[in-house]
Amino acid sequence: MICQNTTITVSTKGQGTYEITPEVESFLQNSGLQEGQLTVFCQHTSCSLVIMENADPSARVDLEAFLNRLVPENQKEFTHTMEGPDDMPSHIKMALTRSAECVPVTGGQAVLGTWQGIFLWEHRRSSHRRRIVLSAVGTG
Amino acid sequence: MICQNTTITVSTKGQGTYEITPEVESFLQNSGLQEGQLTVFCQHTSCSLVIMENADPSARVDLEAFLNRLVPENQKEFTHTMEGPDDMPSHIKMALTRSAECVPVTGGQAVLGTWQGIFLWEHRRSSHRRRIVLSAVGTG
Amino acid sequence: MICQNTTITVSTKGQGTYEITPEVESFLQNSGLQEGQLTVFCQHTSCSLVIMENADPSARVDLEAFLNRLVPENQKEFTHTMEGPDDMPSHIKMALTRSAECVPVTGGQAVLGTWQGIFLWEHRRSSHRRRIVLSAVGTG
Repeated sequence: MICQNTTITVSTKGQGTYEITPEVESFLQNSGLQEGQLTVFCQHTSCSLVIMENADPSARVDLEAFLNRLVPENQKEFTHTMEGPDDMPSHIKMALTRSAECVPVTGGQAVLGTWQGIFLWEHRRSSHRRRIVLSAVGTG
Repeated sequence: MICQNTTITVSTKGQGTYEITPEVESFLQNSGLQEGQLTVFCQHTSCSLVIMENADPSARVDLEAFLNRLVPENQKEFTHTMEGPDDMPSHIKMALTRSAECVPVTGGQAVLGTWQGIFLWEHRRSSHRRRIVLSAVGTG
Repeated sequence: MICQNTTITVSTKGQGTYEITPEVESFLQNSGLQEGQLTVFCQHTSCSLVIMENADPSARVDLEAFLNRLVPENQKEFTHTMEGPDDMPSHIKMALTRSAECVPVTGGQAVLGTWQGIFLWEHRRSSHRRRIVLSAVGTG
């Protein structure tokens, strides 16, 4: 049985989606996992994960712009404002998307669809170092 | 140890929720898994998964209508429009719902609540063949 | 190999986020799991799960208030209204958040970030007893 974890860090430079598929696939290969499950976990509450189309970048631009319209900054009802106008929207965007992604693994490969990539979604405006935990469970 | 995967295909005929609980339970029985975890994974970025009430269909009708109001077509800000007016909204709806569902398994059964069913949520208007990967990890 | 499940119940008294991190960590310790994956699963369709900041409670207050503005009660389009005005919004809020959370485990600890807590998010107004299934898969 294989049970392996690792932590990767992603340096973000403002709001946007940062693809981590290559890092995830590299971890998977090193783990020796052939059959089982892969979990990607985001250790923060102001950024999140999404599995999204990685072919045409315009889809991710529109996705992010939509989320900014859905969760605008400076809502008059906000009380949690000490950490800046982009902090509370970041928590909300995280809650509306995902902290973890689980992907089955077969034949040593994550079963991502043809156009699917795994992305860290940074919701804060300033630069951050984000920690993502990768976990492989199954058989070699 | 049991590590099994299979892919099922679901033929969708336009927007809506398509229950796949029977297919999931059938896979689980065939896998021989008694204790562990089941992962359901959607290999597309314009449809998604949801665990929803499967008793009264009106709840799913209202859910879908709400999502259509939340993410309308033809938003003037959209730039990713080559694949039709329902394409970009589909990606957004996918991102706001789920690509994967994880359900614990005990005594050979997925621990779904009394009213919970697992649904593929098609966000495109035209017919599609959708691929869902099922994965069982644990002991027999 | 370790494959353990348990069910915990949470008594909710109206809408809000109820932290279950201590119960989850206690289960994990009792399970003996050292390396692997933890799944938290909500057996209901009118409450959900979220991993959220557990330091400053004002962030959760703002999060909940935002979701109430996003999914107001008494929308004229709703048809599923027999169970009260807070029922259909509860299903929608559940679908926009999460039924399951998956957290990698290493060294016997769930790899939650410094400020992350696991919360049951009750969307109904009245008191409920909610069932959450915890599942540990991996090695001891």
